[in-house]
Amino acid sequence: MSHLDKRVDNFNAGPAVLPEPALLAAQEEMLNYRNSGMSVLEISHRSALYQQIQEEAEDRLRRLLDISEEFEVLFLQGGASLQFAMVPMNFIRPGQVGAYMLSGLWSEKAIQEAATIRDTRVAATSKDDGYRNILQAWQAEPTDAYLHLTSNNTIYGTQWGEFPVNQEVPLVADMSSDILSRVFAVDDFHLIYAGAQKNLGPAGVTLVLVRRDWLGGAVVDGVPKMLQYGAHVKAVSKYNTPPVFAVYLLGKVLQWLEGEGGVAEVERRNRKKSALLYRVIDESNGFYRGYAGKTARSRMNVTFNLATPQMEETFLQSAKEAGFVGLSGHRSVGGCRASIYNAQPLAACKRLADFMVDFQHRGEYREG
Amino acid sequence: MSHLDKRVDNFNAGPAVLPEPALLAAQEEMLNYRNSGMSVLEISHRSALYQQIQEEAEDRLRRLLDISEEFEVLFLQGGASLQFAMVPMNFIRPGQVGAYMLSGLWSEKAIQEAATIRDTRVAATSKDDGYRNILQAWQAEPTDAYLHLTSNNTIYGTQWGEFPVNQEVPLVADMSSDILSRVFAVDDFHLIYAGAQKNLGPAGVTLVLVRRDWLGGAVVDGVPKMLQYGAHVKAVSKYNTPPVFAVYLLGKVLQWLEGEGGVAEVERRNRKKSALLYRVIDESNGFYRGYAGKTARSRMNVTFNLATPQMEETFLQSAKEAGFVGLSGHRSVGGCRASIYNAQPLAACKRLADFMVDFQHRGEYREG
Repeated sequence: MSHLDKRVDNFNAGPAVLPEPALLAAQEEMLNYRNSGMSVLEISHRSALYQQIQEEAEDRLRRLLDISEEFEVLFLQGGASLQFAMVPMNFIRPGQVGAYMLSGLWSEKAIQEAATIRDTRVAATSKDDGYRNILQAWQAEPTDAYLHLTSNNTIYGTQWGEFPVNQEVPLVADMSSDILSRVFAVDDFHLIYAGAQKNLGPAGVTLVLVRRDWLGGAVVDGVPKMLQYGAHVKAVSKYNTPPVFAVYLLGKVLQWLEGEGGVAEVERRNRKKSALLYRVIDESNGFYRGYAGKTARSRMNVTFNLATPQMEETFLQSAKEAGFVGLSGHRSVGGCRASIYNAQPLAACKRLADFMVDFQHRGEYREG
Repeated sequence: MSHLDKRVDNFNAGPAVLPEPALLAAQEEMLNYRNSGMSVLEISHRSALYQQIQEEAEDRLRRLLDISEEFEVLFLQGGASLQFAMVPMNFIRPGQVGAYMLSGLWSEKAIQEAATIRDTRVAATSKDDGYRNILQAWQAEPTDAYLHLTSNNTIYGTQWGEFPVNQEVPLVADMSSDILSRVFAVDDFHLIYAGAQKNLGPAGVTLVLVRRDWLGGAVVDGVPKMLQYGAHVKAVSKYNTPPVFAVYLLGKVLQWLEGEGGVAEVERRNRKKSALLYRVIDESNGFYRGYAGKTARSRMNVTFNLATPQMEETFLQSAKEAGFVGLSGHRSVGGCRASIYNAQPLAACKRLADFMVDFQHRGEYREG
């Protein structure tokens, strides 16, 4: 029996399941990368070997997302959480205000972090309905430095459909949990950032796409170099030692994605995967209750409840025994959540859907 | 022929050679960590599996460095370069000044970064002699928030012997390139930080040791949460998603170090390894010229020149052909450098020493 036979169905919200070919390549090359006699973990970030790894990753990204030369591509550290601070530090100039669309806990964290150092305002919020939906309507103000949004909300299982593109105000998006999962126009944005640990690769590297012409007007006074996008651009993501292995593995994930047919194909699969699970929910006569409003449903995180916390606990325990990992909801809201990022196979979603139907029809909870 | 037969002698300055047992363990477990059916790269940072990885790493560190309960141990991102900003942000209060001992490029970068946001002063500098030595003498001032030093200077190949311990002023050290390479008293310091990519593990994780009682007085106004040590302490290094794989591999490196006999034993080896190379230099009748002053010589980075840049180029080319990797000096100073961190085997140093003697005795450069 090989290692692969023992792999489980992993519905973790992030870090999450990765494509097996990427892991197998990393395993194969672990002691000797491309006949260099060194592990990727041991090569210099100034070496031609690493140079090639980073350039290939950038090239693949540019192809996959159709990123124009007007954008810089950066590989940074610190996750989306450091971006919460860097975005306002660099792009809210004196007299300006950062406008935020609140669609969940992560956008709340983003505005809270911005507010420690700059002026901010809430452009719209769906907090009143428990973040079950996303409010798209908002009014720009002349002092807005940008409009910030979270494209997919892992905790509530909601996702932006049409983005609130507005000619007047630069659009900034945290796409940590759905980048590369669907086709969209990078050109609609001024800055996009994403922690890697959902669709891109391992925890420890953060992708940033930023418009070159916007960087010219960035704040530099009082901003440490390490927190200036411009410094990282100038140093081609090597202002300091980059997380070499994480960038390497991200490259392997992108290689896999290109081989599978790219973003349009993976979007098709993600639609199919999520539809499978939402159908079980919708056809369960209320046994499973989708958390998100139907028009705001995420194709990355399928969130649902059962009638009582006790039933949820039994469901989660039973799922665990059946070999499904990571189905608990986020600790802040409870309930159940199936995270089905790009690398989640359709077969795993099918097994989960079958399990959910079976669990319901056992009937042991009807009287509860 | 196995992978191991093809491994080269890797003298990279960082990222650098890692212990083979750590790499082999990572390879073995890549697809299925501890029978979980998942890669370490796919497990949740909130899982018991990761909890154990991080706790074991912290426990090993506490044993290896004899770290008391007065210190917090943090695993962060961003490298020493982010610490250059975080230290002054958190610990230079209004009216205070950060005092810096300049012993090379990295301490220059540290003070430059601090100066973007706070008041700083140079406590002492050895820049006038090209950083060949380290000046220990300095005068504390009542407004000093701390005294910052770089314990080992990778570029110039110098290393602090006795630290300038002073009861009046908290001592802060960047130990990125020599932590765990020798016995020292953590208690002499208020804060120690270290990027992992030399002695600790892979690039992408940063170790911080900080006194609990010092955190109480840290600045919080105007400091983003993500840049507050207190926030990371409160969240036990999980304020945001940690670099799971990097912490895991760091743990493997610490496990190896404990198995080898710990810091005292590895210090003995490091003395032996560096002595071997310095002897070749000193007995070469000026063919090889040690860059660092003799009393300031580093046991981590052995820096040397040959009579002319042409001879250095020939030496480096010849060494490369003989299978030695990473012997070029830092791009800012040139020359030659052998980085011999903990994981560098004595045998590799012996091979390099033999090569250096042989290269000299070929005699083809005497007339040059």
